[in-house]
Amino acid sequence: MDLQEFKHSIQIRVRTFEVDAQGIVNNIYYFKYFEIGRVEYRRNFGYKMLKNGIFNDGLKVVVVHNEIDYKSFAYLDDLLNVYTKIPWIKNSSFCMEQLVTEHKTNKFICSGKGILVNIGLNGKSKKLPGKFVNEIKNYEKNLIITKEK
Amino acid sequence: MDLQEFKHSIQIRVRTFEVDAQGIVNNIYYFKYFEIGRVEYRRNFGYKMLKNGIFNDGLKVVVVHNEIDYKSFAYLDDLLNVYTKIPWIKNSSFCMEQLVTEHKTNKFICSGKGILVNIGLNGKSKKLPGKFVNEIKNYEKNLIITKEK
Amino acid sequence: MDLQEFKHSIQIRVRTFEVDAQGIVNNIYYFKYFEIGRVEYRRNFGYKMLKNGIFNDGLKVVVVHNEIDYKSFAYLDDLLNVYTKIPWIKNSSFCMEQLVTEHKTNKFICSGKGILVNIGLNGKSKKLPGKFVNEIKNYEKNLIITKEK
Amino acid sequence: MDLQEFKHSIQIRVRTFEVDAQGIVNNIYYFKYFEIGRVEYRRNFGYKMLKNGIFNDGLKVVVVHNEIDYKSFAYLDDLLNVYTKIPWIKNSSFCMEQLVTEHKTNKFICSGKGILVNIGLNGKSKKLPGKFVNEIKNYEKNLIITKEK
Repeated sequence: MDLQEFKHSIQIRVRTFEVDAQGIVNNIYYFKYFEIGRVEYRRNFGYKMLKNGIFNDGLKVVVVHNEIDYKSFAYLDDLLNVYTKIPWIKNSSFCMEQLVTEHKTNKFICSGKGILVNIGLNGKSKKLPGKFVNEIKNYEKNLIITKEK
Repeated sequence: MDLQEFKHSIQIRVRTFEVDAQGIVNNIYYFKYFEIGRVEYRRNFGYKMLKNGIFNDGLKVVVVHNEIDYKSFAYLDDLLNVYTKIPWIKNSSFCMEQLVTEHKTNKFICSGKGILVNIGLNGKSKKLPGKFVNEIKNYEKNLIITKEK
Repeated sequence: MDLQEFKHSIQIRVRTFEVDAQGIVNNIYYFKYFEIGRVEYRRNFGYKMLKNGIFNDGLKVVVVHNEIDYKSFAYLDDLLNVYTKIPWIKNSSFCMEQLVTEHKTNKFICSGKGILVNIGLNGKSKKLPGKFVNEIKNYEKNLIITKEK
Repeated sequence: MDLQEFKHSIQIRVRTFEVDAQGIVNNIYYFKYFEIGRVEYRRNFGYKMLKNGIFNDGLKVVVVHNEIDYKSFAYLDDLLNVYTKIPWIKNSSFCMEQLVTEHKTNKFICSGKGILVNIGLNGKSKKLPGKFVNEIKNYEKNLIITKEK
C-alpha cells in the first residue's frame, strides 16, 4: 500500500489501557483504530452515526472480513496517523484499506483492510445507494467499481 | 467487607489485553470483572440476559454509581475470585458489593460496589418486583430492606 | 461539582465499541474517558507518558480509588466534554475530580473522581515532588493541600 | 475449515461490554476471544504466561498477522465455543487457526487465523524451540512443518 493513495487520515493517541505487559499496543486494539478511521472517513462526507449504529443517510453496514499485518510496534502515548481509503466497491459491499504510521517518525506500524456489507431491514445484503457510490467515485482516484451479476 | 458474607463467587483469568505497561491489570478493567460477577450472580438464580440487555424476568437495570478501592496489584494470567453480594435493597434500587482476591494466595486485590436501578419502559425508575426482593431476601442473610416513602 | 471550577477539558467521541445493547455507553467505558482526561491534564503542563507508564518527570502513579455517579445516558457518536481538576493534594497522594457533559447540549452525563498515589522504585508510596505540588497550586485556585504527619 | 480438525476448544460467554448498539458482538471483540483461545491452547500443554507476557517455557510470541471472516452474528449472553488449532509451523513462526460457534445451536459464527513469531531478547525473530515443534507435531495430526532456508 502506498501512503500517497490515502486522502483521509486522523490522529489517535495510544492510551494506557491499550498497551500490554510487553509494553506495546496489544494486537487487538489496532482494530479499534481502524474502526474509528472508518467512521471518520464517512464523517468527512458529512454523515454521522445515529444512536442505533446506522449512518444518518440510511447506510447500515456490517463487517464481514477484517485483516491486519503488523510491521512495527507502537508504544504508550505514541501519536498515530490512521489512513483510510476505499479501493473497491461491488454491488452491496466495499473495502476499506487502512495504514497506521507513528506521527513523529513516520514509522510504518501496520496495515490492513475490512470488507463491509450494506444491510437492509430484512438483515440481508442490499445494493449500495447510488449516492454513496458516486461520492466515493469522486473522492478516490483509483477506485475500482465491480458490477456483479 | 468480610469474605465470609459472600455466598456467590466466580473465577476470572486476567488476559493479555487487560494488563498495562506497568505489567498490572489496568484500573479500568476491574469494572469488567465486577460486571461479569453481577450478571453471573443473577444467572445463579436461573435468569439470563436477553439480546437487548434486559434480564429474562423483565428486570432492566442501569448502573447509577460505581466505586472501587484497589489494595494490591493483579498480574497477567492470574486467576481471580470475584465475590458478589447484595447488601441492601430499596424501592427501585439495590447495591451489589464486590471483592476480588487472587485465587492461589487469597491475596486481597480490590473491593467495590455498584448501585443499580430498575428501569421501566418509560426510562424512569420502577419499583423492584416482589419476586426479586424475596429471592434476594432468602439468599443474603444480612440483607437490609429499606422502604422509601 | 461546579463546572466553573474546571479549567481543563478535552473532547472525546463515543465509539461503536463503547456502546452496549441498550444503545448507551456501557458504564465501564466512562473510566476510559476519565483516564484519558487525567493523562491530558498532565500533558497540559508539558509532561508525557513514557513507554513504561511513568511520566517523563519521574511521576509514577497508581490509582487506589475510583468512583463515578451516572446522571444521564451518553449515546453512540456523541461528542463529550471531559473536565478534570485536582481538588486536593496530600503527601504522596492526590485526587482528580472529573465531570462529563454532552458537548452540543451541555447535558450533564456523569461525574466522579480518582485518588492517585505516587509510587517509588520500591513499590511503596513516595512524597510527591515539590515541583508537582507547586504547579498544581498555581493552576487550581481552590486546591487544598494537606500535610500528613 | 473443518470442525473435526480442531482438538482444542474453550467456552466464552458474550458480555455486556462486547455487544454494540446493533445488539451484536462488535467485530473487534472476536479478536479477544481468539487471543484467549490461543493462550488456553498453550495452557493445555502445561504452560502459562508470566507477568511479562512471556510463556514460562521462554516462548515470547508477537502477532504479525490477524484475519477473520464473520459469518453470523453472536448476541449478548451467548455461550460461544472457540476452537483453536495449529495448521503449520515454519522456522520461527506458526499459524493458529480459529473457529467460533454458538454453543447451543452449533451455529457457525466466524473463523480466522493469526500468524505468530517467536522473538528473541534482541527483538528479532528466533528459531522455534524443538520441544515446541515436537509437542505440536504430536498433537495436531495434519500439521505442516516447513523448513525455510
